[in-house]
Amino acid sequence: MSSNAFGERFRIVTFGESHGPAIGAVIDGVRPGVRFDLAEVQREMNRRRPGRSDVTSPREEEDRVEVLSGVFEGKTLGTPICLLVRNRDADPSAYEALRDVVRPGHADFAWLAKYGIRDHRGGGRSSGRETAGRVAAGALAKSMLAERGIRVVGFTREAGGVRAERVDYDEIERNPMRSPDAAVAERMREAVLAAQADGDSVGGIVEVHALGVPAGLGDPVFEKLDATLAQALVSIGGVKGVEFGDGFALARMRGSQSNDAIGPGGPVTNRAGGTLGGISSGAPIVVRCVVKPTSSIAKPQRTVTTSGEPTTVSVEGRHDPCLCPRIVPVAEAMAALAIEDALEAQEALRSS
Amino acid sequence: MSSNAFGERFRIVTFGESHGPAIGAVIDGVRPGVRFDLAEVQREMNRRRPGRSDVTSPREEEDRVEVLSGVFEGKTLGTPICLLVRNRDADPSAYEALRDVVRPGHADFAWLAKYGIRDHRGGGRSSGRETAGRVAAGALAKSMLAERGIRVVGFTREAGGVRAERVDYDEIERNPMRSPDAAVAERMREAVLAAQADGDSVGGIVEVHALGVPAGLGDPVFEKLDATLAQALVSIGGVKGVEFGDGFALARMRGSQSNDAIGPGGPVTNRAGGTLGGISSGAPIVVRCVVKPTSSIAKPQRTVTTSGEPTTVSVEGRHDPCLCPRIVPVAEAMAALAIEDALEAQEALRSS
Amino acid sequence: MSSNAFGERFRIVTFGESHGPAIGAVIDGVRPGVRFDLAEVQREMNRRRPGRSDVTSPREEEDRVEVLSGVFEGKTLGTPICLLVRNRDADPSAYEALRDVVRPGHADFAWLAKYGIRDHRGGGRSSGRETAGRVAAGALAKSMLAERGIRVVGFTREAGGVRAERVDYDEIERNPMRSPDAAVAERMREAVLAAQADGDSVGGIVEVHALGVPAGLGDPVFEKLDATLAQALVSIGGVKGVEFGDGFALARMRGSQSNDAIGPGGPVTNRAGGTLGGISSGAPIVVRCVVKPTSSIAKPQRTVTTSGEPTTVSVEGRHDPCLCPRIVPVAEAMAALAIEDALEAQEALRSS
Amino acid sequence: MSSNAFGERFRIVTFGESHGPAIGAVIDGVRPGVRFDLAEVQREMNRRRPGRSDVTSPREEEDRVEVLSGVFEGKTLGTPICLLVRNRDADPSAYEALRDVVRPGHADFAWLAKYGIRDHRGGGRSSGRETAGRVAAGALAKSMLAERGIRVVGFTREAGGVRAERVDYDEIERNPMRSPDAAVAERMREAVLAAQADGDSVGGIVEVHALGVPAGLGDPVFEKLDATLAQALVSIGGVKGVEFGDGFALARMRGSQSNDAIGPGGPVTNRAGGTLGGISSGAPIVVRCVVKPTSSIAKPQRTVTTSGEPTTVSVEGRHDPCLCPRIVPVAEAMAALAIEDALEAQEALRSS
Repeated sequence: MSSNAFGERFRIVTFGESHGPAIGAVIDGVRPGVRFDLAEVQREMNRRRPGRSDVTSPREEEDRVEVLSGVFEGKTLGTPICLLVRNRDADPSAYEALRDVVRPGHADFAWLAKYGIRDHRGGGRSSGRETAGRVAAGALAKSMLAERGIRVVGFTREAGGVRAERVDYDEIERNPMRSPDAAVAERMREAVLAAQADGDSVGGIVEVHALGVPAGLGDPVFEKLDATLAQALVSIGGVKGVEFGDGFALARMRGSQSNDAIGPGGPVTNRAGGTLGGISSGAPIVVRCVVKPTSSIAKPQRTVTTSGEPTTVSVEGRHDPCLCPRIVPVAEAMAALAIEDALEAQEALRSS
Repeated sequence: MSSNAFGERFRIVTFGESHGPAIGAVIDGVRPGVRFDLAEVQREMNRRRPGRSDVTSPREEEDRVEVLSGVFEGKTLGTPICLLVRNRDADPSAYEALRDVVRPGHADFAWLAKYGIRDHRGGGRSSGRETAGRVAAGALAKSMLAERGIRVVGFTREAGGVRAERVDYDEIERNPMRSPDAAVAERMREAVLAAQADGDSVGGIVEVHALGVPAGLGDPVFEKLDATLAQALVSIGGVKGVEFGDGFALARMRGSQSNDAIGPGGPVTNRAGGTLGGISSGAPIVVRCVVKPTSSIAKPQRTVTTSGEPTTVSVEGRHDPCLCPRIVPVAEAMAALAIEDALEAQEALRSS
Repeated sequence: MSSNAFGERFRIVTFGESHGPAIGAVIDGVRPGVRFDLAEVQREMNRRRPGRSDVTSPREEEDRVEVLSGVFEGKTLGTPICLLVRNRDADPSAYEALRDVVRPGHADFAWLAKYGIRDHRGGGRSSGRETAGRVAAGALAKSMLAERGIRVVGFTREAGGVRAERVDYDEIERNPMRSPDAAVAERMREAVLAAQADGDSVGGIVEVHALGVPAGLGDPVFEKLDATLAQALVSIGGVKGVEFGDGFALARMRGSQSNDAIGPGGPVTNRAGGTLGGISSGAPIVVRCVVKPTSSIAKPQRTVTTSGEPTTVSVEGRHDPCLCPRIVPVAEAMAALAIEDALEAQEALRSS
Repeated sequence: MSSNAFGERFRIVTFGESHGPAIGAVIDGVRPGVRFDLAEVQREMNRRRPGRSDVTSPREEEDRVEVLSGVFEGKTLGTPICLLVRNRDADPSAYEALRDVVRPGHADFAWLAKYGIRDHRGGGRSSGRETAGRVAAGALAKSMLAERGIRVVGFTREAGGVRAERVDYDEIERNPMRSPDAAVAERMREAVLAAQADGDSVGGIVEVHALGVPAGLGDPVFEKLDATLAQALVSIGGVKGVEFGDGFALARMRGSQSNDAIGPGGPVTNRAGGTLGGISSGAPIVVRCVVKPTSSIAKPQRTVTTSGEPTTVSVEGRHDPCLCPRIVPVAEAMAALAIEDALEAQEALRSS
């Protein structure tokens, strides 16, 4: 019954429903004396925020973060940090029509089987809006990692069948798809808008790199760094798979190809995606997530009512026709939380 | 510093090094009064045990499980169950040559960066032998799930480039590759043996199905059932990615294709692989893991010594040329542990 | 680094500094569909609230609780419940004089040794104001226990050397000392006011009874019900010891006196205070906490500055001359949280 | 359902029934490279071991500890350490007469209410023999603390109404009562033997000091160092209360007496028993536990059978007439585990 916490040392608990009063996060386990810059947190929130381009939902949320505790005179106190975001553009009446309908692809059916009760307004806690708390907390993790020279950067590797072939980190925030390849960014956008025009949506792949991660992070059995990252990333709504380094392509290789030779500084190639035996090797962490097409589509779909009667539903309203661009900052946040947590563990192990 | 536990309610801690005195698991959180059949546990151990065919390591381990606590007159007491397996065919001298060598593809390099100390004998705790504790504990989970009508079954979907096209559960244990498709089992085996003859190894894909899982398992945010399964499976050495349902193929679909229509009993198709919003939907759980080629190969590889000098290594000794057949029972065990844990949580949530 | 959570199943995280923007709690692990009555929560907050009599601090706090998540149409959703209380009568300037002084009896000295940084305003998170979050969360626990027929009631057994000899639950809320014995309530109050007039403070004993607790709660080793209650109660600032049933008097008994005879319904006497082997026996839980005299006193005391210079301090300001009356609702809250958590565990163990 | 673990960083899980095959502990979270001296562990086990004087049970157990994992060439690996003790002098037949009887003062009645099943032989897991696992794990904690100059020492402050007035640590192990006061040790022993001759038992008080604990350990809200110690100590069977520093005597003091003045090095007196605001102050930790009279007595007592029929029981067999001497090493072990865990947390917080 405790599904809303992540991390062991840099530990967050998130709360909030999509159309309730507020969403937020409590971070318990931040060291004392860490510089806390609210502007950095707000910048990450703005990256996740809807209503910023024609490929994202037009819901208008200011997503202004308020710090309720744990920070004093610009520094962390070592006590829990509560970050709060009020829901502003909550429009529950828009959801009245969906009160008794089970939307395909959404949590609705399974949620009712689980809880027997729900806040139907925008999916309640199963809404993607839940990720605002993750991004707020992840922003602090990113900032703390940056002070150790660790950078976490995500982008849309593929969307609507269009794939980025080259990766230029500087390009990512210049286009609404967060493509790292300027040459395909516009084609990605068009693929998304074309699907939307058909009352449909598209899937894609989000990739995250973590650069500068020192060797030694992650625990060798159940909390391998890649295992924790896998949980972190698959826990994002819409992510249906994850792969590290060469990932699924490894199935068709031989050991003599897939093993990275080792030099004095560690692996000299990076087919493994940054870990050895689940522990970081010093090479960049490379992980890809498959993102399913947005479940909310205007096209009519076969479904049932909450009482089990067959019906048809067209999910109108404010939705992202492709989740990738907005999942990018969420995936970065989750990766940062997992890595910061592993870093804290390793510093503890080596302290004394 | 606590990487050796898995699960919140049906919680295991495993221990043991490959060539130390013993390996095992303590299960804390088993209900009282559950039938405990040691023969069932032993049967699962035997499935994981090496030395059973020409596609697995010839290490001779009896892997006999001893129950040290928590069971009385054939039933669980509700107290911790300690399951112990002595290491018999430990041959540390065989590893003396590797004391100062960092094996490519293995944990060695990262492990030293983490701990600064290691048991070099067969990888110590980073050895695949560590999974014996998982299988012992998972056997009880499987047995408890079976009593609720839930079956967890794994198989080799692909190995050495040979793919099983049809799935016949009855076929799996009839061939050493654990292929569910009799038509390709022998070709899989030949691909593995051919690589081995070259001093090499192959990768593959292991797939796990969980049948009869009721709707409602999994928690909606960080502990989505698929997120927990992702951690569980990626925590197995050699697994470098995981996908649910249609997985990475979803990247190229539209929402109107990928959404499973809903009928009164739940999803009528199963592209989602058994979850909605991370909560089980009542459809079968379908998950695939990519397994990298075995890291230990006879072919010479470039690497360094533990003091950083360049060298070359040929890893002779007793190794599996393809990990898939032996990962099958481990993947089943991990899936069973994750599902049993989620089932306990859901029964708790709905009790009163 | 994670000190702000309590409970395993009915799990709370509290946050907030005494003179920061707000304090509160997130409760993760409340079942879905539980009636949530904000008025009941507010009533408990009012019991803890300062400024209500001449034996408590005159700080003026409305302590109005706002529910930010987890409740919908009067019922719990099964998602985290965030309860927020804004700090209103924060008067940080009053604390400017104490910025560089280490107050005797308070956390100041140890806090600086721990964190190297602090919010000096009213003790920051080490203030008794931190307990507001506990009481808010505990109010829900009390309400859920009440629905199972379990009542948690606390009172001042002794204060300023005056001891309540009889216990009438109905009397407790009728006098400002929360004495259960009308005959001594006024004498207790006078003892407190006399100390205050001397620029001093007094200690006392708070006792908590839990009635209607079914047999079987608590786990038999480290989480014995009394062990958990001991942690819960000693975690309240000012509590320096705890005893169950006949407590320290048992040191001078013989087994033939101290053992409670057992009848078909359980113990027929209650020297053990409601547990056997750490598991509830069905008899009332009886626990007493010793409360030290309030550390903040007007009398000058020898101490040091934060830079280690000897000095003298008189702690003026708004303080309780005796902590007992305000600790009563906090002790009830902590006992309720511990018992509700154990009840959830037991219902889970027996579900299926 | 997870009651068998203690600690967050230096975390132990214990297992085993009194007359099952073995008892033991797994320690997860020990740093790599720590010297591990089995002889030290065995020495602590011998202190707890029965059959060593006329005031302890004559059960003959060698209690030889076997290290199954986590130690290599005399040092810890950073992996879990499994410590195992076989039960030798298990005489289950002696308990056949008690199979259907509920012993007063023991867990029996509550245990059956909880689990509905039990290992009746010597109380199964509710036996004091369970503490062998604690002592084995605690021995490593004590040894690690000793390397930081921290010493944990326990003794019998009072037994059978005889109180030690002076404390000479060197005296403790010289007498079977573990009295720190040579002048009263023999009178204590006589009081115990006199009770035993009457078919009865006595209670007492065990005190633990921790010397050299640096300021800064413990977390300020729910995991105050004294709160954690309270849980640790009350979790020992037979302990019915705990007090720190002046403890219950503080109820009758005024603040001007009870506050310890502060000097540059911390508190100059120690009425608080070593903590301020729940965080260690640098002064010695001083804690006392009340120990109830042994529940097993030869005198006939009124009770019921497991099916609820009234009966009378005389608990013959091998019992300690006073638990204090054998609780001393257990209390030291629990205190050491709690302090080592807090020390690890603090070193982590201050690392970087």
